[in-house]
Amino acid sequence: MELWFTENHSEYARMSIKVDKHIYGAQSEFQRIDIYESPEFGRFLTLDGLMMMTEKDEFAYHEMMVHVPMAVNPGIERVLIIGAGDGGVVREAAKYRGITKMDMVEIDEQVVDACRKYLTQTSSALDDPRLDIHFQDGLRFVRHARDYDLIIVDSTDADGPGEGLFTREFYGNCYNAMRDNGILVNQLGSPYYAADAAAMVRAYGKLRHVFGIHAAYQAHIPTYPSGHWIFGYGAKNLQPTAISPDWEKLEIQTKYYNTELHKGCFALPNYVRDMLT
Amino acid sequence: MELWFTENHSEYARMSIKVDKHIYGAQSEFQRIDIYESPEFGRFLTLDGLMMMTEKDEFAYHEMMVHVPMAVNPGIERVLIIGAGDGGVVREAAKYRGITKMDMVEIDEQVVDACRKYLTQTSSALDDPRLDIHFQDGLRFVRHARDYDLIIVDSTDADGPGEGLFTREFYGNCYNAMRDNGILVNQLGSPYYAADAAAMVRAYGKLRHVFGIHAAYQAHIPTYPSGHWIFGYGAKNLQPTAISPDWEKLEIQTKYYNTELHKGCFALPNYVRDMLT
Repeated sequence: MELWFTENHSEYARMSIKVDKHIYGAQSEFQRIDIYESPEFGRFLTLDGLMMMTEKDEFAYHEMMVHVPMAVNPGIERVLIIGAGDGGVVREAAKYRGITKMDMVEIDEQVVDACRKYLTQTSSALDDPRLDIHFQDGLRFVRHARDYDLIIVDSTDADGPGEGLFTREFYGNCYNAMRDNGILVNQLGSPYYAADAAAMVRAYGKLRHVFGIHAAYQAHIPTYPSGHWIFGYGAKNLQPTAISPDWEKLEIQTKYYNTELHKGCFALPNYVRDMLT
Repeated sequence: MELWFTENHSEYARMSIKVDKHIYGAQSEFQRIDIYESPEFGRFLTLDGLMMMTEKDEFAYHEMMVHVPMAVNPGIERVLIIGAGDGGVVREAAKYRGITKMDMVEIDEQVVDACRKYLTQTSSALDDPRLDIHFQDGLRFVRHARDYDLIIVDSTDADGPGEGLFTREFYGNCYNAMRDNGILVNQLGSPYYAADAAAMVRAYGKLRHVFGIHAAYQAHIPTYPSGHWIFGYGAKNLQPTAISPDWEKLEIQTKYYNTELHKGCFALPNYVRDMLT
């Protein structure tokens, strides 16, 4: 018998991954959670049947969510992380000794429990003493949040449990939850397949509406639809490619991110740029 | 009945594309040629079952092969194109009025005939009066070639009929076929799956051995394995990111390429950079 996980990237395009073993499966209050073991990608997590991360390429995604804002402001102390139950964002953020406080707000405790147990590569820093995990809705948490230097929104799609994270209210509250040097980074999905592109444009529109400084940047993440992934950057005052000379001194180890790539990743293909302006 | 085209990107990962119709199929002297019609990607060409191009995203590939060198030296007059039977490279090169002569060397006349007939989006400039098409082996042609400003190597993989194009002799002959301002661009494939990454490293090694100035750059091409594609740049004297201010004046229309992206695309992720140094 052969076991293959297949994800429809559009009605007419699919990616299939050979699976050795279905390691974990559960229906939580919020979503279907599955973890598989695969020969090509190591272990991987899906929520409601959609690929969230694989051990082979999650480094690209998590590094680009964390090190882009950190290189702009290596003095960041207080970080708010929305979603990100697999722990990958926390693992990258925990590399910075200057970060004194991380709040992670994940709606689904079962995701975190499963990742702690079966995805130790990403969840390795979830016991960091600077971290508090709040199992609640990010939209509600952020209404009363204050004084963050960095907010990272690592959400699922707009039609999953992360729905509230795609509202203008959410971004307005994020703005208010930030210090003057505040930066927000979120994932906008892919520009390639039509439904993804439309969602990307909508999500970026909210960011643009709220933040005086806003930009989009890209990365190669092969196990996401099209492999072309876009992130949003919003800030009150800090420009996205104004990299601090202090960042290199921290000697953060990365497999994907570097400061040249940081400058380069904000240069989007014309067809993507045109959708976002 | 449902018809799907499936390509194995590795032994354990596949991409599948819904097909409306198999438009053309033939076994030439060199390879199996197929053209399909699909709802998501328009028409697409495969050789020996491997994806060569789709109408939806070929613009990214062809623009990056042509406009990167042309922006470094918009004064390019004589262009040698190896492979590229679908005509996409010629279409992009033909946008430059300063190009006076294009030689395209394609080993398989049947590919060109099929593309002329069924892939008119890419083959639209194959009747350009500045173009001569030579149906022969690129390796042999280049031994006696001289005075080119630009050589574009748009080859299939090293184990297809383009095998000779992956030898050190070929690159040495390309060097000798160039003027002092000469630039060579080739496609190196993907850095992601292990077999592709090994082929990329080997091919880049030959480029590096021959050209004093050498670099690699990347693009997002969703229908190629992993969607992460690497190109090689070799030159006698011209630096890859020294973009001429004259390029913008030409007002070349592009959907992917722009000069900011040109600078950005040479900034590779650490894991790719490390493989190539």
